[in-house]
Amino acid sequence: MHFSKIVNQLGQAVASHSLTSYPNLDPEIAEIQAIETATPNSLSYIEGGRFARHVSDTVAKALILPIDESLQAQATARGIAWMSAPNPRLLFAQTIALFYKPFKPSPGIHATAVIDPSAQVGEGVAIGAHVVIQANASIGNHVCIHPNVVIYPDAVIGDRTLLHANCVIHERAQIGADCVIHSGAVIGSDGFGFVPTASGWVKMEQSGYVVLGDGVEIGCNTCIDRPAVGVTSIGAGSKLDNLIQIGHGCQVGQKTVMAAQVGMAGGTTIGQWVMLGGQVGIANNSIVGDRAQIMAQSGILGDVEPGAVMGGSPVMPSKIYLKVAALLPKLPEIYKTLQTLRKQMEERFPNP
Amino acid sequence: MHFSKIVNQLGQAVASHSLTSYPNLDPEIAEIQAIETATPNSLSYIEGGRFARHVSDTVAKALILPIDESLQAQATARGIAWMSAPNPRLLFAQTIALFYKPFKPSPGIHATAVIDPSAQVGEGVAIGAHVVIQANASIGNHVCIHPNVVIYPDAVIGDRTLLHANCVIHERAQIGADCVIHSGAVIGSDGFGFVPTASGWVKMEQSGYVVLGDGVEIGCNTCIDRPAVGVTSIGAGSKLDNLIQIGHGCQVGQKTVMAAQVGMAGGTTIGQWVMLGGQVGIANNSIVGDRAQIMAQSGILGDVEPGAVMGGSPVMPSKIYLKVAALLPKLPEIYKTLQTLRKQMEERFPNP
Amino acid sequence: MHFSKIVNQLGQAVASHSLTSYPNLDPEIAEIQAIETATPNSLSYIEGGRFARHVSDTVAKALILPIDESLQAQATARGIAWMSAPNPRLLFAQTIALFYKPFKPSPGIHATAVIDPSAQVGEGVAIGAHVVIQANASIGNHVCIHPNVVIYPDAVIGDRTLLHANCVIHERAQIGADCVIHSGAVIGSDGFGFVPTASGWVKMEQSGYVVLGDGVEIGCNTCIDRPAVGVTSIGAGSKLDNLIQIGHGCQVGQKTVMAAQVGMAGGTTIGQWVMLGGQVGIANNSIVGDRAQIMAQSGILGDVEPGAVMGGSPVMPSKIYLKVAALLPKLPEIYKTLQTLRKQMEERFPNP
Repeated sequence: MHFSKIVNQLGQAVASHSLTSYPNLDPEIAEIQAIETATPNSLSYIEGGRFARHVSDTVAKALILPIDESLQAQATARGIAWMSAPNPRLLFAQTIALFYKPFKPSPGIHATAVIDPSAQVGEGVAIGAHVVIQANASIGNHVCIHPNVVIYPDAVIGDRTLLHANCVIHERAQIGADCVIHSGAVIGSDGFGFVPTASGWVKMEQSGYVVLGDGVEIGCNTCIDRPAVGVTSIGAGSKLDNLIQIGHGCQVGQKTVMAAQVGMAGGTTIGQWVMLGGQVGIANNSIVGDRAQIMAQSGILGDVEPGAVMGGSPVMPSKIYLKVAALLPKLPEIYKTLQTLRKQMEERFPNP
Repeated sequence: MHFSKIVNQLGQAVASHSLTSYPNLDPEIAEIQAIETATPNSLSYIEGGRFARHVSDTVAKALILPIDESLQAQATARGIAWMSAPNPRLLFAQTIALFYKPFKPSPGIHATAVIDPSAQVGEGVAIGAHVVIQANASIGNHVCIHPNVVIYPDAVIGDRTLLHANCVIHERAQIGADCVIHSGAVIGSDGFGFVPTASGWVKMEQSGYVVLGDGVEIGCNTCIDRPAVGVTSIGAGSKLDNLIQIGHGCQVGQKTVMAAQVGMAGGTTIGQWVMLGGQVGIANNSIVGDRAQIMAQSGILGDVEPGAVMGGSPVMPSKIYLKVAALLPKLPEIYKTLQTLRKQMEERFPNP
Repeated sequence: MHFSKIVNQLGQAVASHSLTSYPNLDPEIAEIQAIETATPNSLSYIEGGRFARHVSDTVAKALILPIDESLQAQATARGIAWMSAPNPRLLFAQTIALFYKPFKPSPGIHATAVIDPSAQVGEGVAIGAHVVIQANASIGNHVCIHPNVVIYPDAVIGDRTLLHANCVIHERAQIGADCVIHSGAVIGSDGFGFVPTASGWVKMEQSGYVVLGDGVEIGCNTCIDRPAVGVTSIGAGSKLDNLIQIGHGCQVGQKTVMAAQVGMAGGTTIGQWVMLGGQVGIANNSIVGDRAQIMAQSGILGDVEPGAVMGGSPVMPSKIYLKVAALLPKLPEIYKTLQTLRKQMEERFPNP
């Protein structure tokens, strides 16, 4: 595809800023590549920062650049076509979408799928081989269900939602429209509710259900449990990575993102636009305010203020945490210095 | 259901303590709700502590209360029916069970299940669509196997055990009676055993198997590996949450509970009634004594005494850990003070 | 099997060192057991260190020993047959392999497997019940695919590779020869790529793919994501345990091992022969050099030198980390001592 065609197709995103080298250069682009592996046929993306130096050595014929006149001038000088935008990462995503259409099965219900007669199935759905849809489940229009997915009774799948292979949707779960549930994820299984008694742990039946808002994406093998009573909910537009644990009764706001292996214990409340780094753990009944950002591997015990940027286990403000982290390796030196000072003090001022 | 009927059906649990407001109040109860989301038709549960204040503002018509005369009096004054018991959480679980029967398929073997002729299948079993049961496996009476479960050869599934969708039971695993294996869990796969040699890692075949005692519950996507020789065992009545890793050759005692994302490396021994918080990691060959309690995100290197309450990575007694955790954010201040003192000391007592 | 037969069959590994008690003792061996659970019919393995004492009390009739004349003499004195080798763990693995052949289905394609006509399937393959192989996928010779596996379009599975039950291989993934993918693993799903905009997170399509070299082993429920552009790659001979997260665009070298629950964020590069302990987390774009060893639960932010041995979160050299870990519980004491010193200093040298 000619660079000019890419620019034209992206249209508004680029044109509104008129920030492109076209029409001076109009190379043929065969593929999109990361800047480290760019080829002479590729368009690549410079996010700025540590990658900026690649403008001077890349063999890519075209680049997406941040709005940076110096980088743009360098690219032009090297005969590289470029586009810039205030959100170059978004431009990159839009450009990939011109070259790549993700695999999506054609509508149709595979002969081996087992669908309960009481289930409702919308129009234009694609239901793969060996899918199982149980009693009274409801499948919206244009839903795509990949092979070997199991849907328990009374679950609801919203329009255009995509369920990848081998995921499981449990009883009464309500999945919104335009969601993506990745392979192996389990939505709406029993919360971990047991009551200690002298003779052992008694199971508390989990009569609640899980609700995912529209546009939610749930990563591979992530688990979202339903509660004993009420709901576990994930707000519209939130994105969860792989291998995450969401305990029973958690409430997650809209547009919140969680990196892989986060664990939220039961009853936790998370606001909107929150960002949780990988492997973060959150203790029962904690509350994390809107737009809080939590560094990877942090441990949250108690509440976090809206907008707070936190790190460490247990968490503290990240500004402090970064200092603490830098000082931790000096703890042996600190200890030694302290012992020396104490000794000096004792020698010079012996107690009476 | 009238409150009086609930009290009557719970019978012994309540009657033996005669702690209920009935027959003075006998509202109709339509549902069970968490106290935060109680409705005028609901019965709710006050666990005490931070939730106690809700007695004064809830719209619930009925409450389960701890044995606390003040809370009981408040409820009575507000016209709220109540029950109390020494273990109110247990009473809540029993009450939920009156209102909610979990989904359980009817007995029968789905036409699409693939069962090896050499497998033994008990009476009254429910085997779902696309289940695969391989050679010489043994399925007890009244077992329920949800769709797409795979059982490898020679596995044994005890009576009344419940296997949720897409879980995998590997060769020779022995699952006790009354167990629940949740969706996506993998029981009895190869332990992670490789021998380093100059040319690479040589696989050590894992000839052992996994044994789960009666009444064990295993969470979604949790993995329990079998060892090279001998067994990996989980004691009767133990409950494991989601996304847990149990390495090859681990021995877990009875009635132990583990929160999500715990990782036990190979050869670890855990006693009975142990409680492990979420994301706890335990290094190879560690031993954790009976009734030890380990805080979330802790790291265990070495042994933990029976009854110990521990936290931190590596673990220390939790009483110390809580102090350490409170002091960590002061490390920059500590460092600064120490530098100041050292400087003062040097100025006032210069070395000769 | 007579001990002499074991020795003969192991052949080169033992004979080249002539380190065996045979032919003086030649017991019949019925099974291989861990030293803690050895029986009078078993051959066991003493790795040295904390297990060495078992030579004096085991009931095993035969032992694999390290090259240690004292242990060998003890065994001989007790009438225990033994073999020694410089890598006794390897000898143990080879001996297990004489007694135990892992389950492997016979070649053949199950009638319920759904294989797209455009897929290429090699010779001697075993394809289990309810397997789904989609368009243009390529399955090598002697591949074994257990039940309920799903293979997306255009994936390539190398010769003799083994796919366990319910794993998912996504579009375009290239799995090498002689790999093992364990149950529930997901290879090649969408990387976690979203672009923040005022109205929410916009998905960046993940047009890349995953490449696994020959002899790679991937644990149960482990997830390896494909990137937006380019590849995520795992080098030949690398071994990954269960529940691991490999983010989009990670590059892992050859013969690297990772214990369970490791999480690598996107764009991370790991060298060859690296060893990562359980639950280690690695932040975006970090680089870990060849033969680095990282202790369990460590957190890597930034780069790690080749050969470094590191621990802690964030990581520091393990020698320092072990000291820091030992001092952490003394932090309350350190703080108290510091306060005392400061007070003494202030009392004795009041500021003017």
